Amino acid sequence: MGKGESTREAILRHAIVVASRVGLSGLTIGRLAQELDLSKSGLFSHFHSKEALELQVLEYGAARFVENVVKPALAAPRGLPRLQALFDRWLTWSQSDPSSGGCFFVAMATELDDRPGPARDLLVRLQRSWIDLLAGVVAAAIREGQLRPDSDPDQLAHDAYGAMLAYHHASRLLDDPAAEERARRSFASLLDARRTPAS
Amino acid sequence: MGKGESTREAILRHAIVVASRVGLSGLTIGRLAQELDLSKSGLFSHFHSKEALELQVLEYGAARFVENVVKPALAAPRGLPRLQALFDRWLTWSQSDPSSGGCFFVAMATELDDRPGPARDLLVRLQRSWIDLLAGVVAAAIREGQLRPDSDPDQLAHDAYGAMLAYHHASRLLDDPAAEERARRSFASLLDARRTPAS
Repeated sequence: MGKGESTREAILRHAIVVASRVGLSGLTIGRLAQELDLSKSGLFSHFHSKEALELQVLEYGAARFVENVVKPALAAPRGLPRLQALFDRWLTWSQSDPSSGGCFFVAMATELDDRPGPARDLLVRLQRSWIDLLAGVVAAAIREGQLRPDSDPDQLAHDAYGAMLAYHHASRLLDDPAAEERARRSFASLLDARRTPAS
Repeated sequence: MGKGESTREAILRHAIVVASRVGLSGLTIGRLAQELDLSKSGLFSHFHSKEALELQVLEYGAARFVENVVKPALAAPRGLPRLQALFDRWLTWSQSDPSSGGCFFVAMATELDDRPGPARDLLVRLQRSWIDLLAGVVAAAIREGQLRPDSDPDQLAHDAYGAMLAYHHASRLLDDPAAEERARRSFASLLDARRTPAS
């Protein structure tokens, strides 16, 4: 990684923390410059505009998610083991501190849902592709004979998303010590309701 | 309702819309005064401080929720019919526009989870009491013999919350036309997995 690239990465890493805390709307080039002790002109040379900064922060968060959750889980055998690996790593990701992106996409979803524009459009594309990936792994588990053929992959992916949002709510807002166990039970129940007798 | 009370209500009604859109942190007495064409001193006479305003907005949202969701549903027979009525009215509430409070608590949860203070404390109390109320209705359904005795009321309440958060995400961010149907199926599956043969 060149010096320019590693500076850019350090900026984006900090930007995710800021955006998770104060929202994308509170993430300004001036604020980043001050907090990272860089010049505003230096930051502009990396990001050109606030809008470009927002899009790059979202892309950076997505790249971290793929690196930490998707890629390692794809090493698991297809079907149920891969689905379980995706959920386990997603949960670990959700537990990580903001600098790793843990609560980033949940914060973005609430902030951007009523803010039309390129950042919202990109977030929607990213979230849809994640849900579609989950649904695709469910469909594979059906083809492998592990889940019943009448299982609806999109519904299961949707419900898995709900389990993760409930985990966020219980752990981050309610400080529920059982949050992680509840999330695991939610997901296990979603699978158990659809398992074939053989699996 | 006296004139002072109806002014206060009009202010809080607008404050919920603002807070849903820009967060509680963006809700200032100056902004409210400007948008409602009232004097800042008049607003201060109602709310005294930004912190008091925040707490009253949360209390007002909770009162609307009780009025629109909890009270009417408590008219249904206890146990499963009441649980279903709570979910149905909660879904209707979530679909309502911000001036009715629809997305208000979801927005508050994401904003306040990492902002310690009286507003967060109050939100946690309000959300816990709602989840406890749901769990209490589940426990009644178990006593009525409608749900299996080994059902965990807290887990079901937690999962119902997840179904509602997934509904928000699918409908408000992803514009998924199937969001409502998915939410109803999620909740029906939660009940079906725990129903006694008799119910």
